[in-house]
Parts: sequence; structure tokens; C-alpha cells
Amino acid sequence: MGYTVAIVGATGAVGRTIAGKLEERNFPADKVKFLASARSAGTKVQFRGEEHTVLEAVPDQFDGVDIAFFSAGGNVSKALAHEAVRRGATVIDNTSAFRMDPDTPLVVPEVNRDVLQHHKGLIANPNCSTIQMVCALEPIRKKFGLERVIVSTYQAVSGAGAEAIGELGRQGTDMEGRAQSDAALLPVKAGSKHYPIAYNAIPQIDSFGEDGYTLEEWKMINETKKIMGMPDLRVSATCVRLPVVTGHSESVYFETGNPEADTESVRAALAGADGITVMDDPEAQIYPMPLFAEGKDDVFTGRLRKDPDVPGAFHLWVVSDNLLKGAALNSIQIAEALIADGAVKGEGADGTRQHINGDGHAIR
Amino acid sequence: MGYTVAIVGATGAVGRTIAGKLEERNFPADKVKFLASARSAGTKVQFRGEEHTVLEAVPDQFDGVDIAFFSAGGNVSKALAHEAVRRGATVIDNTSAFRMDPDTPLVVPEVNRDVLQHHKGLIANPNCSTIQMVCALEPIRKKFGLERVIVSTYQAVSGAGAEAIGELGRQGTDMEGRAQSDAALLPVKAGSKHYPIAYNAIPQIDSFGEDGYTLEEWKMINETKKIMGMPDLRVSATCVRLPVVTGHSESVYFETGNPEADTESVRAALAGADGITVMDDPEAQIYPMPLFAEGKDDVFTGRLRKDPDVPGAFHLWVVSDNLLKGAALNSIQIAEALIADGAVKGEGADGTRQHINGDGHAIR
Repeated sequence: MGYTVAIVGATGAVGRTIAGKLEERNFPADKVKFLASARSAGTKVQFRGEEHTVLEAVPDQFDGVDIAFFSAGGNVSKALAHEAVRRGATVIDNTSAFRMDPDTPLVVPEVNRDVLQHHKGLIANPNCSTIQMVCALEPIRKKFGLERVIVSTYQAVSGAGAEAIGELGRQGTDMEGRAQSDAALLPVKAGSKHYPIAYNAIPQIDSFGEDGYTLEEWKMINETKKIMGMPDLRVSATCVRLPVVTGHSESVYFETGNPEADTESVRAALAGADGITVMDDPEAQIYPMPLFAEGKDDVFTGRLRKDPDVPGAFHLWVVSDNLLKGAALNSIQIAEALIADGAVKGEGADGTRQHINGDGHAIR
Repeated sequence: MGYTVAIVGATGAVGRTIAGKLEERNFPADKVKFLASARSAGTKVQFRGEEHTVLEAVPDQFDGVDIAFFSAGGNVSKALAHEAVRRGATVIDNTSAFRMDPDTPLVVPEVNRDVLQHHKGLIANPNCSTIQMVCALEPIRKKFGLERVIVSTYQAVSGAGAEAIGELGRQGTDMEGRAQSDAALLPVKAGSKHYPIAYNAIPQIDSFGEDGYTLEEWKMINETKKIMGMPDLRVSATCVRLPVVTGHSESVYFETGNPEADTESVRAALAGADGITVMDDPEAQIYPMPLFAEGKDDVFTGRLRKDPDVPGAFHLWVVSDNLLKGAALNSIQIAEALIADGAVKGEGADGTRQHINGDGHAIR
């Protein structure tokens, strides 16, 4: 007895990755419905060796759905997520539509799994660049405390969708003509100006607010505070798009406020945390890089070192696959935690349909 | 009556750029000698419409040279710079060999031109990533003070020499095979491991010290303190190599310690400074990018914004051509300042051979 699952945005980069990961992790789904916009309806997708036709995402499609993963953009989530909840589905939304809604839990299972107990049918999956950072900071916070974070990001184009990968590929073949490359997508498709990303670094992800910060930067600031349950944490961010296909990197500076924290014990805290791989051996030139984090589940950390002047403050380099832990994998881990904790909507607290062990991994 | 100039490392990326800029700026050179290693001797170079043969850099070549630009690596400078000084030349060294030597001025003319008065024949040109940062910080320090700097860099491959550009070009044409690209140069040619730079970000520039920082990071920390004359300034850095041909970018966080500093007045301080161009109109998507800073002399600044939590603290995005202001141009500006200030070695304080006006620009 498994679950009926829907994937909304099934033809997009994240939707496809969700399907692949459901299969790979033996997620207890009896049935998976592939949904998308009218434009993409009719597309065929492969799942568990069978071909499935993508259907148009309309409210009635959520009848009988237990768990719905949304990753078709904020407007689709705003239009359909509550319709799905009303029909009995538990929605895990991968857009920014509800992340800062006080009634919607914003969850990275390694950090704040407990808040899943209080959901009302809708759970938000955080922004990709936020997820990998809080995964790295949480074990440090637990052991030493955390007072301040200053992050500069190095973000991959796949965060802007599959089309952006194609644009980078076309531009990349012409290094000589790089300054004249055609650009139609980045930094923001709907924006008035587009710049080549190949052989460039664009200090804009998402649109600008009035204060000079981009929405991506505010996501990192506000979502980090919400997920970590630290409304007064000082966080500030600069977000930059790079000519990298997949894999976000982050230069994270943090102050624990704890002069007892030393490099070795911080590294040990990271090494002992779920979902973190420490790659930190400078002499052997071992450190995380996005090119080698692609396709991997973990958050990779390295280059840990003390601030020369400020006790208890450190630099850390954090890399993860933005489509996996940054999106699809975290969404599925939320679903697995819901099942394990008996918190899929409509179930009793005893989780009568529980097919997942306490670690959130599927039991065959 | 002009100067006799030598360029040591005349066949390298910086040496060639020095020659081009000497020509473009009408530098008052009667004669230019092109010097390089025995391996490159015999190479032909064009200068002022004439072909010149590159000669081997040996001590006797510096007889009669007034100003020698060195950019052939630290070992060449260690072997020959003092030989050149002994023969009467004023040496402007673009390597790290003497930068932290207390007897050697380390100069960015916009910041500490005054220390040129005390040189002993040898002047060091700072590291590329340091130069553009101190250019941006100095006008802010002057007006508001400066207490702390945290920088993450986004550095171009041309900083690793002309060969590295070729390697990026070859790797860039094969996005699909990116994880298997041949790599023989980066991050450090003499290192034991090499990683592809195309579609990647490598958090290592230069080799590692025992404390987990790279030498590039220590250069940014120590050179900034020396140039700005602030031994107690708190500076910390993370340096990252990117698939960008030319143009270093920096995410610079700084605390002025002055709660009166606001975005508008900091931006005005930058706009009024020599050698700085402010490109900062988020709504119109105007901000500096390395692809468009290539070939330009200025240091470009943008994305200035206040830290949401810390009064008097700001983020700034700083971009400049690492071969120009980061190397060749700054070296020539040092020479122009020496001439204008009558401080070329062997001259009287009245600068009898002065052909340069007070702004350091050549007079025809």
C-alpha cells in the first residue's frame, strides 16, 4: 500500500530530477501522475521502465493524490497548490510562492524536521542556495552557536532552467567572440537586458528590490533565519551567476561568537552531520568543486579556516548539486520525513501507511 | 630627452600588455629593450611600428636602463632586480618577490603615491586582486574610515598566464564532456593535481600555507594592510578561479565603523575618485561584469548596498582587467608618478628629465 504522487512541472529540470530520484530511492509510490502546463501536456516521460503521458495540471487532477511535488513556477503554485490541498493532497512546493508565509513550514529535514508536525497541507522547499548553506551551518550552530553569516555565491545556470544550459553551451563554443555572444535568457528571462554568461560572471540572480539587493539575496537572508529558527541572526548575501552547468558554490563566512571553536572541532561537527561530506585536505588539493558535485546527493564542504583576526569566526566553501539537495532531493526527503513521522495529511499520527524507516529512507 | 626602458618578461601576457600601454600612453621612452629568458630570446615583437628582437635578460643588459619593468616570475626578479638597480635602473617589479620586504615600497598610485619618495631603486607592483580592491576602498576609507574587509574573489584565468587562456578555450568547446576535460595547468602548474576550469570554479589560486589559506589569499590580506598603511585593519579573503578569460571580480564586504556612512555618500566618494567608474543602477541592470571590463583601464564598482544589520557596513562588487590596472597599467602608472615626482633613481629631486605632468600622464 503506497502513495499516489503527483509531479507538477514534470517536464522541467527539477520535475525530471524528482521523477528520477523517486525511482532511485524506491519511494513508496503506487502511482505517479505527471502534470504540467497545457503547453507541455502530451509530452511522454519514462518512469520505472514505462512511458507516461504528461497531463495538464488542473484542479481535478489532484483528486486522490496523497503527495504533490510542485516545481512549475510560483504562479502555478499560487493557482493550484491550495486546490490540491483542498482535495486531500499534501503539497511540497519548490517555488518561492509560500516560503515566507508564516503558516507554511519551510523545511530542510536535517535542520528543522520537527516543524513538519505542524503543517496544514502545504510545505515549502527552500531556495537552492539557502538549503546547502543551512545544511552546513546547522551542525556548527548546534555545537558552537552562530551569530553572523556573510555569503557570496557562485551559482550554476541550471538554476535558471534547462534553456539556460543550452544558452551557455552555445556561447561556450566561441571564446574568441565571447563579448558578442547572443544572450536571451540570463540574468532574468523577463528582464529588459540579457548578458552572455559564458566567460562572464553576472552579479544578478532574480530581480532587484528597492534596497539594491536581489530577490535571490533576500531569499538567502530571510529563508536562513526562518529555517534555522533564528529571526535575529545577522545574515547578508551577494549572489552571482557563473558559467557552470550544475552545482552551486558558496564562500560562507560565519561567526560563532564562541572563542572555543577551533578548526578541528568545527570540521568534526561537519563530518558527523547527515548529508555532509567533508573534502578538506589542502595539501593534497582536496576541496569541493561544482564540476564534481554534479549528480551527487551530498553537501560538500571544505577550505575551512579561521579568520586571522576574529576568534570563533571561519571561512567555509560549500558546494552542492542545485537540482538535487538544492531542489528535487530535498523535496523528496521532506516527503520521506512526513511519511516516517506519520504527517502526510489525512493520516493518523500513527502513520498507518508508513513504509519508511526512521532515517527517512524507503524500506523495500 | 626620454628614458631608456627595459621590459623583462617581454613575451608574457603582462609584458606584452606593458609594451602596448607604453605605446598607447606615449610614455616618454626614447628606447625600449625587450628582455626574456634564454628560451624566449630571439622572439620578435612589434613596438611603435618597428620589429624588435627579444634579448636574453642578463645583468649587463641593464647598463644604461633608467626604468625596468619586471614580470617574468619571482625567481627572475630575485636573480636580476638588484643587478638592475646596481646598474642605475629603477625597477618596478610585478612579481611577489619583494612585495612584503619592508624596504620596498608597494604602490598603487591612487592610494599611496607618497611612499615613492622613499624608494631605494626597487618598487613592487601589488597582486592584481589586491590593486583593484584597494582602489575601491581608499576613497571610502578617506571619507568614512575602514575597520574590516571580507572579500571573496572571482578571478580570470589570464592571471595564470597566456597558456591558461588556451586551456580554457579548448575545454570550453566541449560542455558535454566537461567532467573529463584534459587539465594540465590549473590551479597551479607545478602542483600535483590539475582540474578543468571550464564549467567549474576552483577554490585555489597559488599554493596553500599551513593555515589553510592560499598564498593568493595572504597576498590580499597582507598587501592591503601595507598599501593602505593600516597594519591593524582586519582583512580576510577567499580566492576562487573561474572560467573567465580576463577580468577579476570581487564581492567586497566592508565595515567603515561609521554609522553616518550611507549608500549615497559612499557612492559619491567612489564616483569622485581617480580611476574608478561607478556602474550602479540596479533597476536598469547596470553593474560591472568581467566580460565588459576587459581591455579597459578603470576599476568598475557597483551593487553598493548596506548590510541590513550592521550600521556603516556595505557590500560592493568590484571588477577590473587583471592585466591592466591589475598589472601592466599600474606598473606604468608607478613609473609615470616616479617621473612626475622626480623620483626616478639617479635624478635630482627637481626631476630634470621630467616629461610628465602632475597627474602622471605623459605630455607629448
